[in-house]
Amino acid sequence: MSAGSWAAFQAMGPEEKRAVFQPGGRPFHALIAEQFDRAFLDRLCELTTRARRIAKTRGGRLFLQDLLCDRRAMLYFAQPSTRTFLSFYAACQIVGLHPAEVRDTSTSSELKGESPEDSVRTFSSYFDLIIMRHPVGGFAERIAWLLSNTDRVVPVINAGSGKDQHPTQALLDIYTLQRSFEARGGIEGKRIVFVGDLARGRTVRSLARLLMLYPGVSQCFVAPESLQIGSDLTAALDAAGVPYTCTTDFDRAVSEADAVYMTRIQDEWDAGPKRAGGDGHPFHFTERHLDLLRPEAVVLHPLPRRDEIAPEVDADPRAVYWRQVRNGMWVRVALILSIFEKDAEVDRYHADLVR
Amino acid sequence: MSAGSWAAFQAMGPEEKRAVFQPGGRPFHALIAEQFDRAFLDRLCELTTRARRIAKTRGGRLFLQDLLCDRRAMLYFAQPSTRTFLSFYAACQIVGLHPAEVRDTSTSSELKGESPEDSVRTFSSYFDLIIMRHPVGGFAERIAWLLSNTDRVVPVINAGSGKDQHPTQALLDIYTLQRSFEARGGIEGKRIVFVGDLARGRTVRSLARLLMLYPGVSQCFVAPESLQIGSDLTAALDAAGVPYTCTTDFDRAVSEADAVYMTRIQDEWDAGPKRAGGDGHPFHFTERHLDLLRPEAVVLHPLPRRDEIAPEVDADPRAVYWRQVRNGMWVRVALILSIFEKDAEVDRYHADLVR
Amino acid sequence: MSAGSWAAFQAMGPEEKRAVFQPGGRPFHALIAEQFDRAFLDRLCELTTRARRIAKTRGGRLFLQDLLCDRRAMLYFAQPSTRTFLSFYAACQIVGLHPAEVRDTSTSSELKGESPEDSVRTFSSYFDLIIMRHPVGGFAERIAWLLSNTDRVVPVINAGSGKDQHPTQALLDIYTLQRSFEARGGIEGKRIVFVGDLARGRTVRSLARLLMLYPGVSQCFVAPESLQIGSDLTAALDAAGVPYTCTTDFDRAVSEADAVYMTRIQDEWDAGPKRAGGDGHPFHFTERHLDLLRPEAVVLHPLPRRDEIAPEVDADPRAVYWRQVRNGMWVRVALILSIFEKDAEVDRYHADLVR
Repeated sequence: MSAGSWAAFQAMGPEEKRAVFQPGGRPFHALIAEQFDRAFLDRLCELTTRARRIAKTRGGRLFLQDLLCDRRAMLYFAQPSTRTFLSFYAACQIVGLHPAEVRDTSTSSELKGESPEDSVRTFSSYFDLIIMRHPVGGFAERIAWLLSNTDRVVPVINAGSGKDQHPTQALLDIYTLQRSFEARGGIEGKRIVFVGDLARGRTVRSLARLLMLYPGVSQCFVAPESLQIGSDLTAALDAAGVPYTCTTDFDRAVSEADAVYMTRIQDEWDAGPKRAGGDGHPFHFTERHLDLLRPEAVVLHPLPRRDEIAPEVDADPRAVYWRQVRNGMWVRVALILSIFEKDAEVDRYHADLVR
Repeated sequence: MSAGSWAAFQAMGPEEKRAVFQPGGRPFHALIAEQFDRAFLDRLCELTTRARRIAKTRGGRLFLQDLLCDRRAMLYFAQPSTRTFLSFYAACQIVGLHPAEVRDTSTSSELKGESPEDSVRTFSSYFDLIIMRHPVGGFAERIAWLLSNTDRVVPVINAGSGKDQHPTQALLDIYTLQRSFEARGGIEGKRIVFVGDLARGRTVRSLARLLMLYPGVSQCFVAPESLQIGSDLTAALDAAGVPYTCTTDFDRAVSEADAVYMTRIQDEWDAGPKRAGGDGHPFHFTERHLDLLRPEAVVLHPLPRRDEIAPEVDADPRAVYWRQVRNGMWVRVALILSIFEKDAEVDRYHADLVR
Repeated sequence: MSAGSWAAFQAMGPEEKRAVFQPGGRPFHALIAEQFDRAFLDRLCELTTRARRIAKTRGGRLFLQDLLCDRRAMLYFAQPSTRTFLSFYAACQIVGLHPAEVRDTSTSSELKGESPEDSVRTFSSYFDLIIMRHPVGGFAERIAWLLSNTDRVVPVINAGSGKDQHPTQALLDIYTLQRSFEARGGIEGKRIVFVGDLARGRTVRSLARLLMLYPGVSQCFVAPESLQIGSDLTAALDAAGVPYTCTTDFDRAVSEADAVYMTRIQDEWDAGPKRAGGDGHPFHFTERHLDLLRPEAVVLHPLPRRDEIAPEVDADPRAVYWRQVRNGMWVRVALILSIFEKDAEVDRYHADLVR
């Protein structure tokens, strides 16, 4: 699985990278949303649901914990993210993987003049999986490339790098949509409405691209002009023949949606003082919108929220963002099991369960 | 177990809150010392001693670890307290609960404008128990109330909130007294002397109130006038008909005590620079006081200490504060087992052990 | 195992201290490199190799994890060192020891005026092993002495204290040399070349002393005059009759070496701003030196490195510093097993494996 030179690797497109990231046809590294194909998404959703079902009994929880109890994972979080950290940490615990964390990466070896690559290679020596969050875009890819040129390659999961990639967020969004539409024929043919800061939100960009794998999905983007999706994304949608609209008519979009995907303003990437909640984008989902929303539609949000969604909306059964949070943990469980090729064992246990 | 509105909940007295915190007659949440009745304290002490005894063999330790090994706990420590943190962390490990920690809560979602309630609800999604320390009084209660209005209620243990409540400290104090007086008929009828900063110390306030549940206990408060117990506590003692004295005659109080409960000055709540050890209150327990102390009396301290107790005192068998530290871990073990209703299993194992 | 007064203890030489640290002839505490004798080093290397071999199968990994799964370790790192921390953390996980960490020791009890000794004694109450890193030289020894005067003595492993002692680094260096020379009769008679900052590097000082236990070893020290080894070390080498040379002829030393032990400049102990990589000592091992190096020789480095070794050297099979990193984890596994007297169980499992 040698990845050649770094320059050659960087020049690769998603398709070529997939061969490096998924050497046996399944993910070894999980680095960019574009590496996942439809077959993988379907299988991951199935595995997620099976793992959740198995975990409903103590015996099932013990079964899951046994699967990777002889392995260790490092959670290398050079950028703080308690939410993503805990979700991965709990996912590791569910499958028995012993976790260790590195949060503050500035205190130690870098002070002594070590390169970041040497640091991560050293830390990787002790573990069987690296889960990595880093403020620098492409850093997780670089580490995966670097390790692939050593004699001890360990899988790398990207838990968010820079402004661009957060692939497991995209996976949990897909899973939440798939679960929400399970009784209605799945994601195919549904109308997905994205609302808010669509220019910078990496979750929207990744999800919009993955949705291209589902025939008949139409996409609607509700944002002020300054926050609308970029031309690279519209070009990709055009090329794929995906129907989409860009609008500021929030109410109409809500009333026509199968799913409303709310997002907050992403000003933590801006320089200068952070704004307190309240002066984000103008589209706020309130109790009034529950009346506009179809009975079978759902509201998602990657969280954290500010005032894009009023707390009063939480109690409505169509508000699925709190379930989305737990889905994130279970999708990560399934991803880890998939990387370590434990899915067949899960299938067998599940088959016994439903027999 | 819906707790109604926050305003209505806040207006409740301890008795009413108990119905919310202990829905089935046993603690589900452990939030304030006043929620515990005498039957619970007796049962908790019994369970603590049984767990300790079981843990003396490897087989027993494996039994305890198995009890909650399919569960996960979050230790949410928004206020640093290494001692309390480690005590709970070890208690989780003893019963097999997989722990995860959140210490620095300022770095992540709050920066992005999320409400503290949303943060904790998100984090709680991944875990089966929340152990929470927070600088804001009542915060743990608020979280327990908040979760009780969701469809995924997890128990909350208050590991110290603000200046007022640190209920597991009160529990470990009760257990230490009960163990110390085991061969002398228990806590009933004993004379307990509190010394030091009695105005601010939450441990003294909580313990003094719990001792009202033990008939015949007399309480003595040794403090400079500015640090004496408040009128709310004396009013409660009067109302309960508990005999008590307030004095500055430290030597006499020591000579008449069954237990001397030393405390340090609590100036970390003051503004301004902290004092180094040595200029606290004037009552220091030294080797000289060991001669005044009855042979069967004991000396407690919630720790950390400054110079209230001379290190030379440590070697005396009546100095039980180091044992008190370990008792804290075991009481927390028993509390967690009780919350998860594992006490019957402990009883059975223990019965086999002593048969 | 009472250690008498602190003053008397400090005045002891390594031989006398060994009786305190190794009360039953085997390490109970692991505090200074000088406490280890040749028999222990040989046994530790054997145990390390056996544990590694056992860990190659899932069954073996489960066996190792079972050995100490009823025990808990505290990693008390008052000085940041992610590398050493993770190595010990992973070692604990391998043998099933449940780890807990204390990194930031300034936030809590010290603010409240507690002595460091009281803090560590409190924390030690909850655990069965203390792994300690501290910026103050001799601190780990002081804690071991302090605990030896209490009724709950737990073993202490020194993970680096001050500028002088880092005994497990010395152990992993010995193991790496022993493994490298396994097919060539072991370490005896080999020529070991130390390069770089030899004045301050504690790893060099400890390793040079341990090598005196191996007959026939000659030592060569390559450093600018200002960074050469101190007179205390040369005096010890003279007293032991060990042949050694001090030189600045790096190329010749490399060409004659069985092992080249590279080190970086240790300027993190200096006051003032840290230098970025690149202006350390003048001896850099580059691809050119691979041609000078004997085919069966090896290159070690305790890491982190700056530019003492060019990254291009990494791919050469004689560059063993990345293996050295993993060796560190396995030596710590063996040390912990040895302290808890689990070595006989490892021997039995290993004997079944090779039968």
